[in-house]
Amino acid sequence: MSIEITSLSNKHIKHIKSLHKRRYREKNNEFIIDGLRLVEHSLLNNADIKAVYYTSELTGSERGNELLEKMASGAISLYKVDEKILKEISTTESSQGILGIVNRKHYRLDEIINKKKFTLIILDRLQDPGNVGTIIRTADSAGVDGIVSLKGTVDIYNSKTIRSTMGSIFTVPVIYGLDDMGIINILREAGADIISTTLNTEKYHFDVKYSNKNAIIIGNEANGVSEELLESSNVKVKIPIIGNAESLNASIASAVVMYEIVRQNYFSEN
Amino acid sequence: MSIEITSLSNKHIKHIKSLHKRRYREKNNEFIIDGLRLVEHSLLNNADIKAVYYTSELTGSERGNELLEKMASGAISLYKVDEKILKEISTTESSQGILGIVNRKHYRLDEIINKKKFTLIILDRLQDPGNVGTIIRTADSAGVDGIVSLKGTVDIYNSKTIRSTMGSIFTVPVIYGLDDMGIINILREAGADIISTTLNTEKYHFDVKYSNKNAIIIGNEANGVSEELLESSNVKVKIPIIGNAESLNASIASAVVMYEIVRQNYFSEN
Repeated sequence: MSIEITSLSNKHIKHIKSLHKRRYREKNNEFIIDGLRLVEHSLLNNADIKAVYYTSELTGSERGNELLEKMASGAISLYKVDEKILKEISTTESSQGILGIVNRKHYRLDEIINKKKFTLIILDRLQDPGNVGTIIRTADSAGVDGIVSLKGTVDIYNSKTIRSTMGSIFTVPVIYGLDDMGIINILREAGADIISTTLNTEKYHFDVKYSNKNAIIIGNEANGVSEELLESSNVKVKIPIIGNAESLNASIASAVVMYEIVRQNYFSEN
Repeated sequence: MSIEITSLSNKHIKHIKSLHKRRYREKNNEFIIDGLRLVEHSLLNNADIKAVYYTSELTGSERGNELLEKMASGAISLYKVDEKILKEISTTESSQGILGIVNRKHYRLDEIINKKKFTLIILDRLQDPGNVGTIIRTADSAGVDGIVSLKGTVDIYNSKTIRSTMGSIFTVPVIYGLDDMGIINILREAGADIISTTLNTEKYHFDVKYSNKNAIIIGNEANGVSEELLESSNVKVKIPIIGNAESLNASIASAVVMYEIVRQNYFSEN
């Protein structure tokens, strides 16, 4: 069953609009997902979907109706709205007639670092939401066990980040709010190598034989890994730059390192 | 010496506005570069800069003045405009008070494929300007010899693409306008391996020993490499997906393959 909302001043509508801001997302422990694909992914991965808002655009397609049927059998509140309202609460131009509100899942770092083998990605003050989302998607693909987002990094639950994850936000554990040295100390105690990419090293990323416990720090787009974290790293590598580029995009650099670890794990001859 | 333009109906201003459209960029063989960094890069790499438009925002900074001095000694036409005009002709919100018009450079495929060793990237109908720009930047970094942009790919000279290249548009040869089978036949005759990424293969990208002549096809974001190009490929590889992600972003996938080739070239033990 679904309830129809016709007024922009409805309290639910006002609530969703507040979720466009980071501090309300944090306060309410929620985030917005826009579009058919993300809502499908959230359902498929048993995300804690609180509510879904849809228009006649959704019910005009077979795929939309199928999704709606699946959701109707659960505990998800369904609201029908008109296009004007959806446009007001949506975070994108192409919402495909559907938007969901999802409660955040909280992951525990100790569940990851107690494993015998793990790879963690640590985001050090990244500013570009698309980069962060792409890193989460790549990490999911490379079988990374979790992402740690340090203070000063763009909000993981920013709608652009969520879209760029292409659904991996529901499958990769993301841990946030820890301070830099706190996390480094925990990882060291767990026996992890702290890996940074920097130009001030002679070792290329493929020269290192990676251990079973890896924490890779990805630095800020403009300034790289912070001085303090660089000093705390026991493995420093650089990705060779053969041509004229000054640097690699942060999501590209992290992918190259992640997939070198995958290669070493899966390519037995080396 | 610089000329001051004060009217939005000035013919130069109208001309630049026309360059926001692909067909005028093609007709005039020109493109727009926005911002201090790109103009600096264009100068550094001896790009054929036709004209530069700037505001008092540029002359308010030391870096801006230095750039202006360097340009004043050359054949570049300099125009001073006010903020309103720059906003009208700019393709971004953050132009930093400067915009340039650059004549395109034309590269020859035969100069690349006559080399004893080369890597080419072939863009097969990519639609995201940011992806294409990031691929060009990564290709530059990985020492790729050239990019071939097939018909149906987003315009290389789109302003978003140009910005994402971070200057590599001036250093990586980009060849465009060739049709699919035309380019494949030329590359085969040159003795190049035609490499596609696809899920329909058992070989991982790191299982292949790459030859000295490689042409890597990067497929469309939604549909991958086209059927025809896939059939024409003599090397088919897949990037392993360990976790739950359905696929990798196109710029990430291309980076992972490019850097595996770099690794094989530079890491002698394997």
